[in-house]
Amino acid sequence: MDEFDFINKITPKKRNHPNIKMGIGDDAAIYRPDSEKDQVVCVDTMVEGVHFLKHLSTPYEIGYKALAVNISDIAAMGGVPLYYLVAISIPNTWKESELIDIFQGMNEIASHYNMSLIGGDTVSTSKDLVVTVTVIGEVEQNVRTLRSEAEDGDIVFVTGTVGDSSAGLDILLGKYVIDDASIKEYLIERHKRPTPQVKAGRIISSVKRASLNDISDGLASELHEIAESSRVGIMINEEDLPISQELSQIKQTCDITKWMFYGGEDFELVGTTSPESWEQLKRLCNEQSIKITKIGYVSKKYTGVFLMKNDKDGEPLHKSGFNHFKK
Amino acid sequence: MDEFDFINKITPKKRNHPNIKMGIGDDAAIYRPDSEKDQVVCVDTMVEGVHFLKHLSTPYEIGYKALAVNISDIAAMGGVPLYYLVAISIPNTWKESELIDIFQGMNEIASHYNMSLIGGDTVSTSKDLVVTVTVIGEVEQNVRTLRSEAEDGDIVFVTGTVGDSSAGLDILLGKYVIDDASIKEYLIERHKRPTPQVKAGRIISSVKRASLNDISDGLASELHEIAESSRVGIMINEEDLPISQELSQIKQTCDITKWMFYGGEDFELVGTTSPESWEQLKRLCNEQSIKITKIGYVSKKYTGVFLMKNDKDGEPLHKSGFNHFKK
Repeated sequence: MDEFDFINKITPKKRNHPNIKMGIGDDAAIYRPDSEKDQVVCVDTMVEGVHFLKHLSTPYEIGYKALAVNISDIAAMGGVPLYYLVAISIPNTWKESELIDIFQGMNEIASHYNMSLIGGDTVSTSKDLVVTVTVIGEVEQNVRTLRSEAEDGDIVFVTGTVGDSSAGLDILLGKYVIDDASIKEYLIERHKRPTPQVKAGRIISSVKRASLNDISDGLASELHEIAESSRVGIMINEEDLPISQELSQIKQTCDITKWMFYGGEDFELVGTTSPESWEQLKRLCNEQSIKITKIGYVSKKYTGVFLMKNDKDGEPLHKSGFNHFKK
Repeated sequence: MDEFDFINKITPKKRNHPNIKMGIGDDAAIYRPDSEKDQVVCVDTMVEGVHFLKHLSTPYEIGYKALAVNISDIAAMGGVPLYYLVAISIPNTWKESELIDIFQGMNEIASHYNMSLIGGDTVSTSKDLVVTVTVIGEVEQNVRTLRSEAEDGDIVFVTGTVGDSSAGLDILLGKYVIDDASIKEYLIERHKRPTPQVKAGRIISSVKRASLNDISDGLASELHEIAESSRVGIMINEEDLPISQELSQIKQTCDITKWMFYGGEDFELVGTTSPESWEQLKRLCNEQSIKITKIGYVSKKYTGVFLMKNDKDGEPLHKSGFNHFKK
């Protein structure tokens, strides 16, 4: 494979943003920032055999997800994703057509958000494919949906539903067997093609104050991060956790709690805000048809995260999260 | 190794930039851009066994170079490097202390340029360590030291000296044997700890127009990129190429041409500018004690890169560059 020829094939033919002064094709990219905004930037890596298995995901799906997980981080900061750069380490077990599919998968989700590929690096490696994506976005100045923003008396909320992605992974790995084809397809799709909650993040960042995380490592782990950063206790009502119709239909046959709390990769948003802002948030999300659910409250009388069942006293919820394909 | 504990160890204890609103510790970093500047961003990956060999470089040196090569890309755009993010894929053959050394090597060169680590990702992999660094910097609006800026009649220049890094690599690999300890040490140091030419890049970007590349893949390859992007021919006088005293002392005993043109990783800057701007550039560099040398000229009568020896007609200089440790 010729590196220059490959780069030419994956370089976007049109640029979406007039602010891009130099995209792919020089030593670095140059763009003009919105002078009224702050810049938001994150990087995430996916490794073959750790974050994905080649026989279970298509290259297109791998690319889609590699960019999606980064967009989700921007969403958790209340930002708008704009640009991305891709560094890819390629073993000779991957064909050029598969690599182009990875970039096409990224291009699909990028186009949903009007994002542009502006740079990258293509190198060889001996064994596992590694894809590292950097995403840059913008957010209004002084908007800070940080983990450390939770306060006593806050409402704890989550967008969408939780547990689907982890259920989908267990189905893929053969750890959970299911006959219903449409439920199976839905759950696997939720694992392979997560939807970053950019619109929800924008709404949440518009209220007076909110703490926020995206659910990458598992709901329990994300709640612990908020509790620790904010030095508060978080009380969760298990029966309030929003689950999909599909998960609801199979919940008698499996350990749904594990998927909901420790599965991870739902890429929904979890956070807290004051009771007054929560009323505003519910209304704004409702107007945009975004599902958002109250699942608990914040108390500074405790530290840590507690699970309350049937309104009984809470039990500590341990935080160990998602460990990908590791034993 | 505990990921959270490790991140805590490598997180800078003080932040250099008041513009960093959120560094490591949330879903993404947030910084305030200079509203008068454009943003410059690049990403480069170094893979164990391809870009470095563990038995020939210390972890500290690997970290130093991983960041240096990215700073060099910002320098080639005339920019000032400000922030960096590090994604690292770690096999279990690496100890935590070695990983901390990688970050300390990066921290050393970062401190030279007053740069801050603002984010990253730490994941596991099965075989080779992969380190991907993203660097963000700023440059004045409308400054464009692009490859495509060369024009007929331009002077071709290069900063510093060329060939040292490649000579150092050949010594490290045992392909070239040298007895003189101080020359040996100098050349290896030039390979392991390249100095990005940020100050020179700033000066070059201050003249009216200049094309510019950093020498990562080899001087011949970089010249070809400028010639192709600008659709011009470049004529190089081989005897004008600046070499170090050290290389000069051993040039009778080795193929110095190969090192100068195809070695790569000198991380000097090569470019072109008008004869008028060249006089200004020479003066400005001289004032700052930066070595800059005229090595040829641009002609639109030709396409490609030509090497002239003793003022005779030029021969085409082929472009194949540096292929790291590949056969």
